[in-house]
Amino acid sequence: MRYLTVLLLAASCLAQDPADTIRKVLDDQVAAWNRGDIDAFMTGYDNSPNTAFVGSSIQRGWENVRKNYHERYPSAQKMGKLDFSGIEIHLLGGEYANVLGKFHLARTKEGGGDASGVFTLLFHKTPAGWRIIQDHTS
Amino acid sequence: MRYLTVLLLAASCLAQDPADTIRKVLDDQVAAWNRGDIDAFMTGYDNSPNTAFVGSSIQRGWENVRKNYHERYPSAQKMGKLDFSGIEIHLLGGEYANVLGKFHLARTKEGGGDASGVFTLLFHKTPAGWRIIQDHTS
Repeated sequence: MRYLTVLLLAASCLAQDPADTIRKVLDDQVAAWNRGDIDAFMTGYDNSPNTAFVGSSIQRGWENVRKNYHERYPSAQKMGKLDFSGIEIHLLGGEYANVLGKFHLARTKEGGGDASGVFTLLFHKTPAGWRIIQDHTS
Repeated sequence: MRYLTVLLLAASCLAQDPADTIRKVLDDQVAAWNRGDIDAFMTGYDNSPNTAFVGSSIQRGWENVRKNYHERYPSAQKMGKLDFSGIEIHLLGGEYANVLGKFHLARTKEGGGDASGVFTLLFHKTPAGWRIIQDHTS
């Protein structure tokens, strides 16, 4: 019986839709952000020196991206409440996926006021799971 | 002899590095832009209603993207001289590629002055060749 359960669990993992897994990474990021936990938010990104964050310029490497988030959002007030909308997940073969979406940051006037924009993410199926290898936010 | 030539040509096409092909699409786009030919520039994009241009908002469809370029750049003076730099081409399996780069637009004061920024492009190997299916420019 235990063996069957393990088998069923394994089969269910194998059958999991990559889009659902990616959606969960994003949902987990939003939840982490909204409890003020940038390091947990960062687990959505591939922990690699090649991970890139593209905005008005290009940041390279997971550690730089993490540092930059901490610098830009040093408090829960500056972080505000994050919300993603219009998420579209497009699988690019078996190992990559493109995600398009919009973000909205609800913040007090003291926190910097509301902010919003568009993002495109490139996900890669890494040994650790589906992770963002490129984030372009504008 | 003619048969051999055809065979060799076919083999050379098959062996062509996708990164070289993609690089040529970009070079052709720059050349088209710099002779003021937006429609030729647009052949770099997949002629599909799904093609997306992401900037401060999201434009959908090749025809909308084309129309928007014509509206934003109605003259050779407004188009200026385009230059791409720091191009990185990353193949994502056999059918997709991610391109990261910077653009610079040299323009007269009357043309709107110089402009520059960063872009990420998603290329897809379509029946017509490698084409941009998503352009995010900021």
